Amino acid sequence: VNVCAPSEVVAPQAFSLSRFMAPPDARQRRTLAVGLIGPGRVGSALLRQLRTAQPRLAREAGLQLKLCGVADSRRMWLDHDDPELNTRSHGAQTWRPGDLDAFAAHVQRAGERHALLVDCSASDAVAAHYPRWLAAGVHVVTPNKLAASGPLERWHAIRQACAGGARYRYEATVCAGLPVVQTLRDLLDTGDELHSVHGMFSGTLAWLCNRHDGQQPFSALVREAHALGYTEPDPREDLSGLDVARKLVILAREAGWPLSLEQVEVESLVPPGLAGLPVEEFMQRLDQLDAPMAAKLAEAHTRGGVLRHVAKLDHHGRASVRLQVLPAAHAFAHSRLTDNVVQFTTRRYCDNPLQVQGPGAGPEVTAAGVFADLLRIAESLGVQA
Amino acid sequence: VNVCAPSEVVAPQAFSLSRFMAPPDARQRRTLAVGLIGPGRVGSALLRQLRTAQPRLAREAGLQLKLCGVADSRRMWLDHDDPELNTRSHGAQTWRPGDLDAFAAHVQRAGERHALLVDCSASDAVAAHYPRWLAAGVHVVTPNKLAASGPLERWHAIRQACAGGARYRYEATVCAGLPVVQTLRDLLDTGDELHSVHGMFSGTLAWLCNRHDGQQPFSALVREAHALGYTEPDPREDLSGLDVARKLVILAREAGWPLSLEQVEVESLVPPGLAGLPVEEFMQRLDQLDAPMAAKLAEAHTRGGVLRHVAKLDHHGRASVRLQVLPAAHAFAHSRLTDNVVQFTTRRYCDNPLQVQGPGAGPEVTAAGVFADLLRIAESLGVQA
Repeated sequence: VNVCAPSEVVAPQAFSLSRFMAPPDARQRRTLAVGLIGPGRVGSALLRQLRTAQPRLAREAGLQLKLCGVADSRRMWLDHDDPELNTRSHGAQTWRPGDLDAFAAHVQRAGERHALLVDCSASDAVAAHYPRWLAAGVHVVTPNKLAASGPLERWHAIRQACAGGARYRYEATVCAGLPVVQTLRDLLDTGDELHSVHGMFSGTLAWLCNRHDGQQPFSALVREAHALGYTEPDPREDLSGLDVARKLVILAREAGWPLSLEQVEVESLVPPGLAGLPVEEFMQRLDQLDAPMAAKLAEAHTRGGVLRHVAKLDHHGRASVRLQVLPAAHAFAHSRLTDNVVQFTTRRYCDNPLQVQGPGAGPEVTAAGVFADLLRIAESLGVQA
Repeated sequence: VNVCAPSEVVAPQAFSLSRFMAPPDARQRRTLAVGLIGPGRVGSALLRQLRTAQPRLAREAGLQLKLCGVADSRRMWLDHDDPELNTRSHGAQTWRPGDLDAFAAHVQRAGERHALLVDCSASDAVAAHYPRWLAAGVHVVTPNKLAASGPLERWHAIRQACAGGARYRYEATVCAGLPVVQTLRDLLDTGDELHSVHGMFSGTLAWLCNRHDGQQPFSALVREAHALGYTEPDPREDLSGLDVARKLVILAREAGWPLSLEQVEVESLVPPGLAGLPVEEFMQRLDQLDAPMAAKLAEAHTRGGVLRHVAKLDHHGRASVRLQVLPAAHAFAHSRLTDNVVQFTTRRYCDNPLQVQGPGAGPEVTAAGVFADLLRIAESLGVQA
């Protein structure tokens, strides 16, 4: 229910798409062809959001978004801005065996139009295509962390491939729709200097820490989070801290620090003996987490603080991800539910950091982060020099 | 001192201006002519930032920033990308009597190049020129709140004047360099719906509320803030709440709600009897604020809460600015120093809001907010269709 815009207050004619300020005249019109790879939860949410926005973007921003195709790991559907693309993409319509380069070529149609690929897969194989696509002038937008946090050589190749003007954006890789990567860029591009990053980048671990008060064993909370869908199907992906470490790598590189995932000091909450087990067996032995977690909580209580899962990039370039005891007055002690928090301390923001906080996961907000990246690229197609 | 990028960690060749990803090839190069109106504290900080960034922007982004002139309320200096522009702008060099339209024409040079005017004045007379400049294709970027929170007719005229492609940006009008206006735009442009805005938009009042614990009379704190330069020269500009109300109007309009300043319910902390006095006399009678403020603080203590200066835009479109008693567990209760806070509650961010927090005033961060707007416009000049 939309409760935000009651008719007695809002004059609809006053609304116009803010980014573009006013309905554009004819010479401002442009077309952007979009192909989606990975029609999972985030990808489907994005298709819905794009589909809903299409008429408004055309009317108010002069932007024709052409949704040209969907590809999953095995098949692709090459539609020509089919209005049913969204709902039928998993239906019985014609598909072809997946071929990502053919898919890109279809979206780009031999350079006749601006083309953009959205990678909503979590696949390293898809990420491996980025340099080629970008070099061919196809923009890439993605919530997939594997390229931006993967091997440095590929990361450099991707950036080099942008020299011709194609854009690679990945805001949604860190805290979904929260403005984190763009905020860091704006700081640096305007001449600020990053001193440190402190954050809570895992909604799952934030929730577990918020709830872990000693009333229930930690394993019971993990089971509850698992049942609520707050964890990955294998909760070790959250508990290992690896996903958080990837986000730290992405922010470090954004600041020009060539950090690799292996250089991040990660304290896993998963006991070594449980790391290699099948997931069902891991879930059965979950109570092995209880004693160490109870000890950490007791330590926090002794010191009058709280336990939080903190990612840190310090001014020496050292990166770490670990459970930490924080004073009760610390900003991270007051976070709620599954909130993510990011604090940038910089030359300009040195007494108090610049802080962004809020829900940092979920298909709708992640898709919105991708969509915002797409719009920022669309903006840059707007004005002819 | 730059402590963030020690040489043993950072490979300088890895750094490239993030926004533009890689050094652009020749066809990506472009020139943006910039004129500054209002070389005060923010304007001077901006000139320094632009001057420092010029070589990097040219090298890494292919962007030639030409600083073409400075105008204050009476005079203008028309330099042709004079490298000494910054330091000499108040010196003995040649100036002419101020003529803002001639100044704009000089920067634009009859449409030969992309042109952008930065208005760092706090002048309504300057704001009155925006529609004309924008209609002529000159971009406008400003921290001046008077246009975006001023008469609705002018605001509409400004937006209409953007139909030809000129851009009007004003991120720094709300919380200086914090990403507030752009964040709201991204939410709305991707199809989210604003339910409410809660914020603390005055660093001065945040500081006063943080310090106001009953140990000292409120007037002593106002005197201290005044001496520290935390207040305007006339502290009533802060205490009246009018400046905060303007920020609320700007955000409401960004969301498409045609709010006027007169519609905001503002609770002034200035007793009516002191509103019309000369500032020296007001400062002498400052202790008249003590009894009402002590009473409010006592009420907060009785209710176990804290006193905060809160701006609110609710889902009925009602806007208010007032001192409020908040529970001790409220996010605003934990703010520090002169922090600003903004919370957007939307359809997608409904359980927990999206929150941005940090220092929201000061010449350097305000100038950086203006600079980020300028870069975003420069980006949109980048790729030829």
